[in-house]
Amino acid sequence: MARHPAARGLEDDAALLDGWVITHDSIAEGVHYRPGDPPDSVGWKLAAVNASDLAAKGAQPAAALLSMAINGEAAWEAAFLDGLQQALAQFGMALIGGDTIALPEGAPRVLGLTALGRAGPHTPARSGGKPGDSLWLVGTLGDSAAGLALLRSDAEAAGPLVEAYRRPRPLLAEGRALAGVVSAMMDVSDGLLLDCARMAESSGVAAEIDLGALPLSAAFAAERGDGLEARLFAATGGDDYALLAAASDQDLSLCLPPATTVTAIGRLVEGAGLSLTFAGKDVPVPERLGHEHRTS
Amino acid sequence: MARHPAARGLEDDAALLDGWVITHDSIAEGVHYRPGDPPDSVGWKLAAVNASDLAAKGAQPAAALLSMAINGEAAWEAAFLDGLQQALAQFGMALIGGDTIALPEGAPRVLGLTALGRAGPHTPARSGGKPGDSLWLVGTLGDSAAGLALLRSDAEAAGPLVEAYRRPRPLLAEGRALAGVVSAMMDVSDGLLLDCARMAESSGVAAEIDLGALPLSAAFAAERGDGLEARLFAATGGDDYALLAAASDQDLSLCLPPATTVTAIGRLVEGAGLSLTFAGKDVPVPERLGHEHRTS
Repeated sequence: MARHPAARGLEDDAALLDGWVITHDSIAEGVHYRPGDPPDSVGWKLAAVNASDLAAKGAQPAAALLSMAINGEAAWEAAFLDGLQQALAQFGMALIGGDTIALPEGAPRVLGLTALGRAGPHTPARSGGKPGDSLWLVGTLGDSAAGLALLRSDAEAAGPLVEAYRRPRPLLAEGRALAGVVSAMMDVSDGLLLDCARMAESSGVAAEIDLGALPLSAAFAAERGDGLEARLFAATGGDDYALLAAASDQDLSLCLPPATTVTAIGRLVEGAGLSLTFAGKDVPVPERLGHEHRTS
Repeated sequence: MARHPAARGLEDDAALLDGWVITHDSIAEGVHYRPGDPPDSVGWKLAAVNASDLAAKGAQPAAALLSMAINGEAAWEAAFLDGLQQALAQFGMALIGGDTIALPEGAPRVLGLTALGRAGPHTPARSGGKPGDSLWLVGTLGDSAAGLALLRSDAEAAGPLVEAYRRPRPLLAEGRALAGVVSAMMDVSDGLLLDCARMAESSGVAAEIDLGALPLSAAFAAERGDGLEARLFAATGGDDYALLAAASDQDLSLCLPPATTVTAIGRLVEGAGLSLTFAGKDVPVPERLGHEHRTS
């Protein structure tokens, strides 16, 4: 369907059109957020997941169009817009248009954002990885999934893991700093293993990941430990909005401020598919690599 | 929320950003289309309603991002994409990205499109109308609403009115031809009276419409007649995707090919609000001006 050169977006996080990086991600009630989540956090999250796609392309956020399919709860909608506004202001995006439609009663809300960013000098694709590249991760993994698990057992749960689930932070400055030195980059939204498999497939290579190297936050490790099981949970949980990058011989930690969590987690090699190790031993690839609920 | 100069989109059909006209309209099952409508016609309609917003701004369609919140019926989705693809090809738009999410079972589908068009030398706003301007309509009114009424009484109904409901034709060439000579333009999507009231309000003027002048198709008149009741139905039905334009002293029919249906239907005057006449007599403005289901 999409043979236009700008259509890298169908296989990538975003499209590139005349110097604009453009993406559209939607979130649905009961799928990407819990009906009981604070509505301002849902607004924040919608902006953040789209800004994260811009971050992965090294773009400077500029503008957004909002699509709200809602069911007429004015207080919810006002708080949602408050949270969205906070996030858009934080990320430097102007709301320039959109659409609001009323769903039949009881239908789950569907909230979409089209985000436009100004492309930098380099817009890394997901497909640019080469055999021999190192794989790097900026940010930590598993916090959001651990926060969601906490909320599932206690709807009143709070703390940094719940916050990571509700208010992810797109790595905009980090993405811009890396865009010119990486061979491929994407954001980790659906689970590291799934997203890494996508990068490998679209690059025509295989990926090897050392689970022992995965960056875990102190809060995550305190909640779930840092053994193999916890690491597989972190590598498949999704909603991380970390950045996954491939680079040939750059030490990416030298391109980022010293306090940044940036970690070499594996490499790309000739072949196809994904292989995992932990403590020097091979680990079977789990059947479920991440969340398939969104196809792009 | 939106003080950015590009944000005319919040009060207009589309935003204008660096030479791009950008719009996003969504349609929902059971709201903007009937669950039994052929899925290819739903795809066509989604592209057409967005292209119509570009038409109203005189823009040349270029690209689109698709947002599908669907529930996993592969045959429906394939046919929907076929219809969308036909329409995008017809209108000259490349699909460059988007997002697909899976809704919980039984949730109504929500289908959104972000459409990008290249702005022409003039991008008329909805708010540019002046006292003394004539009001013009390109296209006919009521066909789609009459087609929907037919479908409601007979799900197997067919013919030009049903076709108008299912496969509207955006007036792209007409919009481009008029963009430079009108003081204000918008598409009629929610009902002429509602959309005209919006143009008048955003222009800070009042609007007078001669219901007797409204252009009705032969199929419409054969189905519902052409008296006052039929004309009020046509003026409030919505889904017309006609163009409503205000112009100071241009005869807009001279700017369009001779076969075009273009009709002077009233004028803008000092004041506020809407007034209607028929056969030289005042007609009370109906309580329901059109479909409020979409707020922009």
